[in-house]
Amino acid sequence: MNFSSKILENAVDEISKLPGIGKKTALRLALHLLKQEEQQVEMLGTSITNLKKDIKYCKVCHNLSDRDVCEICSNPGRKKGIICVVQDIRDIIAIENTGQYKGLYHVLGGIISPMEGVGPDDLTIKSLIDRVSSDETEEVIFALPTTVEGDTTNFYLFKVLKGLNISITSIARGISIGDDIEYTDEVTLGRSILNRQPYSGS
Amino acid sequence: MNFSSKILENAVDEISKLPGIGKKTALRLALHLLKQEEQQVEMLGTSITNLKKDIKYCKVCHNLSDRDVCEICSNPGRKKGIICVVQDIRDIIAIENTGQYKGLYHVLGGIISPMEGVGPDDLTIKSLIDRVSSDETEEVIFALPTTVEGDTTNFYLFKVLKGLNISITSIARGISIGDDIEYTDEVTLGRSILNRQPYSGS
Repeated sequence: MNFSSKILENAVDEISKLPGIGKKTALRLALHLLKQEEQQVEMLGTSITNLKKDIKYCKVCHNLSDRDVCEICSNPGRKKGIICVVQDIRDIIAIENTGQYKGLYHVLGGIISPMEGVGPDDLTIKSLIDRVSSDETEEVIFALPTTVEGDTTNFYLFKVLKGLNISITSIARGISIGDDIEYTDEVTLGRSILNRQPYSGS
Repeated sequence: MNFSSKILENAVDEISKLPGIGKKTALRLALHLLKQEEQQVEMLGTSITNLKKDIKYCKVCHNLSDRDVCEICSNPGRKKGIICVVQDIRDIIAIENTGQYKGLYHVLGGIISPMEGVGPDDLTIKSLIDRVSSDETEEVIFALPTTVEGDTTNFYLFKVLKGLNISITSIARGISIGDDIEYTDEVTLGRSILNRQPYSGS
């Protein structure tokens, strides 16, 4: 594309480096920004610059945080005995949004994937073992994806944690609430029969 | 969404104000940025901040520019006698990409639309009349959208320009190159028959 302005070209080039945003969308976004108040555009620019510069990772659970220890880990109202292992900070946001979980988290930073060259040492597994060994941990919940890589990671974690005196659980897999049985995929349906639960009347 | 970090929340809030980007996409983009080099993220932030602060509008044609007069208007190789009237800077980029036009442009900044409260005074029509009256202009080309608003704007411009001694043309409308006649919409096909052109053998 031929731009009449280097400043515009720069902005479009930088914006189009974002995933899923091509040159045309980047141009549309840049022209949208030009129609906004200067203050508004500056707030966007500054918030992006600050993002990488000022953000920290929680020393305990590796969650993103503004402080050395994140809000969840430093909240005295949370149950310190339960640690939910997730792949990514997005999973924490999703679980927090349910309002059903009051324990702590541990962000692995990925899952074991030989195809992508991610081994146990690239994840925060050592820090998880340290936490579980030294703390008052009673339970570790696996909340990793149901993929081959997720299952491999679950299995690896199970092997390294089973010697410690804690209960190891996994979040329930089954048919989504509201889904029809006839349209559920075979693997999910099969597993949901194998892992049937005592009927509790709810 | 519950974020563990105010800095992340700020960035997501600001990014999700962009058109077509919701909270989930904004979070995905923010987490992507966190995985990039700090320098890369800062370049994006700075290029956005500079965009609104430093960009100028060409005094002659109202194109976006880094200088008072844009590259096209100040290029001695362009034909000063021809002015192509467009709605928006994106149209300039599209026409420039064809490499077929060597004249100048005039960016209206919109089209007349009573529905959206845009009248002739909100556009750069006065500046166009000044340019056409005082310059060595020979031809004005209308390259506005083929909508009711576009046609209204064409008609308005024609009325105010026809007194001046210039030729007024419009870009050719017809069946796109490569399109099948049977699948062309009625209006386009009808007009392309009415506006048939002498066969030039090419």
